[in-house]
Amino acid sequence: MVNVMGEYCRRKQQTGKDLCKKGTPLGEVPIPESQGLAPGIIYLIIIIACQLLYTQSPESLANYNSSLLSICFMLFLGFVDDVLDLPWRFKLILPPIATLPLLCSYSGSTSVIIPKPLRGLLWRHSDGGGLTPLGQLLSLFVTIDGQAQGKIVELGLFFMIYMALLAVFCTNAINIYAGINGLEAGQSLVIAVGVLAFTLTEILYENDGKASPTQVLSLTLVLPFIGVVLGLLYHNFYPARAFVGDTFCYFAGMTFAVIGVHGHFSKTLCFLFLPQIANFLLSLPQLFKIVPCPRHRLPRVDPSLDRLLPSLCPCASEEHRWAKRLFGLPPDSDHFINLTLINAVLRVVGPLHERTLCLLLLLLQVVCCLGTMFLRFYLANMFT
Amino acid sequence: MVNVMGEYCRRKQQTGKDLCKKGTPLGEVPIPESQGLAPGIIYLIIIIACQLLYTQSPESLANYNSSLLSICFMLFLGFVDDVLDLPWRFKLILPPIATLPLLCSYSGSTSVIIPKPLRGLLWRHSDGGGLTPLGQLLSLFVTIDGQAQGKIVELGLFFMIYMALLAVFCTNAINIYAGINGLEAGQSLVIAVGVLAFTLTEILYENDGKASPTQVLSLTLVLPFIGVVLGLLYHNFYPARAFVGDTFCYFAGMTFAVIGVHGHFSKTLCFLFLPQIANFLLSLPQLFKIVPCPRHRLPRVDPSLDRLLPSLCPCASEEHRWAKRLFGLPPDSDHFINLTLINAVLRVVGPLHERTLCLLLLLLQVVCCLGTMFLRFYLANMFT
Repeated sequence: MVNVMGEYCRRKQQTGKDLCKKGTPLGEVPIPESQGLAPGIIYLIIIIACQLLYTQSPESLANYNSSLLSICFMLFLGFVDDVLDLPWRFKLILPPIATLPLLCSYSGSTSVIIPKPLRGLLWRHSDGGGLTPLGQLLSLFVTIDGQAQGKIVELGLFFMIYMALLAVFCTNAINIYAGINGLEAGQSLVIAVGVLAFTLTEILYENDGKASPTQVLSLTLVLPFIGVVLGLLYHNFYPARAFVGDTFCYFAGMTFAVIGVHGHFSKTLCFLFLPQIANFLLSLPQLFKIVPCPRHRLPRVDPSLDRLLPSLCPCASEEHRWAKRLFGLPPDSDHFINLTLINAVLRVVGPLHERTLCLLLLLLQVVCCLGTMFLRFYLANMFT
Repeated sequence: MVNVMGEYCRRKQQTGKDLCKKGTPLGEVPIPESQGLAPGIIYLIIIIACQLLYTQSPESLANYNSSLLSICFMLFLGFVDDVLDLPWRFKLILPPIATLPLLCSYSGSTSVIIPKPLRGLLWRHSDGGGLTPLGQLLSLFVTIDGQAQGKIVELGLFFMIYMALLAVFCTNAINIYAGINGLEAGQSLVIAVGVLAFTLTEILYENDGKASPTQVLSLTLVLPFIGVVLGLLYHNFYPARAFVGDTFCYFAGMTFAVIGVHGHFSKTLCFLFLPQIANFLLSLPQLFKIVPCPRHRLPRVDPSLDRLLPSLCPCASEEHRWAKRLFGLPPDSDHFINLTLINAVLRVVGPLHERTLCLLLLLLQVVCCLGTMFLRFYLANMFT
């Protein structure tokens, strides 16, 4: 299917050249863009068809359809972005709107459980109990459950805002942590497998093997996703014969946000996204244009060695001296390093082949997923 | 907004030339394509925002979200089609899939009321009553309500299939009844106003001024639609500064199908689509390639007169003699007339200016809408 779509894209010149292979013969081959389209459409068709088998209660249908709507809307916007290059303001405004149906049909809890060591900050356990000054300040905005003695904080609207921001983050995080063959599809696959492992562990060890409706929904959403991403990865892995485009990044990001929100594990999801969060925080100075930000920030290639090196962007030698010093560059340098996790890894490990680099970054993602499982099932039980 | 999107499209060469102005200076101006994008996205945003004000019962949310999902999916496919030119098989398979969520959450009746004069065909009113032979044959497939004496026929699954086909028809009908400036947006506007008038009349005269939930849903869906189509028509009316593309045709068609299904007036909707049905029936020989079918079937322009004439397509002089005779052409002619309602009107009325032709066709649509109102509120009451 990716091949079929690729053919249509090639016919309409929706193609690009692989910048990571500039100077090599592979760098001259036009590669079809926005190939997230094929897995996206197939995914939607599968999920729509699954609806027929799905439980027919109106609540679950509302959840199900709102999830699909959010995913479909983002897939659509991703493709529009690929074709028309939308400006940044649209990319920030549209994901929260796409999340709105999701939030409207959200029927889960909007409270968080505060880990044991932090409860003392909100609730005095001595002197008959009561809110601490910090607790009193917080209770102006949120509801701190007095009966649970600071264990439960009801966030209400703030939890909704948090979930909307989560959707914005997820859709953009995968998009900016990209640039080398197989990374977008690979990281999505690892996260999806992480979600699957997490949900299955929860079902087996916490629910005695009986899945709750939210867990069934998570599984229904994540299993076909793993399927279509595997298909895409086959075409997108080094050397890529298809580029995934914003279409895929938005689609994958929104799918995770939807699973996180409707599966009621939006907090755990953040831990699965640790490399993306690191990459996002690292990118902030460039995203907010505090330091110069070029159009593409992917690593540069050394064609003679066939290795990737950290990429640089031009920068006036007298500007941003403090930032250059911060990142270990000479203060009067006429270039600045692109602040991405990919470049950071290349600086630490040294020049790497594109395939090796991708595998290393995916390994990092796997480690984060395993860490999340440990945190959620071992540590969390100790502290709550 | 259409202007903004138009600018992005122009930048990315998503433009086309107006074939109805070939040979005139206006025919050389590149005009942005697929401008259904802007009204489509704005419509979705409005409807998603309306959800916040909307009743919060899970049933209505399920209906609401499934409607939006179907519309969003078709809008997306329309844009994909505009950009990549999908083949016909996709265009026929995808609309029923897009309708599936709609049908899954459909909770209305699946029965039809048989008009008085036809009831005798199904039910013998003499001899103590009973099914006629035709009634017995039909009852193998559907349930004929014996208590209502042939008044009510429960179609069950067949009604679902009918609604899926309705969606396929609506999405494609507007698309093939197109080709001159303002016609796609204009016909959609007239139909939408027809739906609005129909729903309001129903509320005022049959429900004593109290709107049922399905009627509120119809109004919520149709009012923003009228708004965005007015905006689009402003840019699309003669001389067009924007082409609506498949994006708009699919979006508008699916919106009508959704309103028809969830508003429970899918049968009345067919009457509002009479010109589209006529155009579809007329096009069948060309759609099924019984006679030759060119890529574009819009009328040809006579630049010296600035008038439109019926368009012809090349055809071997010895082929399709019967069809040529049927449509009043010499049997050994080396061309064949394109079988569209637009061409048929041009043959009857004579050469017309593009604007006049569009207004005439829209007038025809208005007449059909008024006829539908008469039929539904005057005749239907007489016969049921």
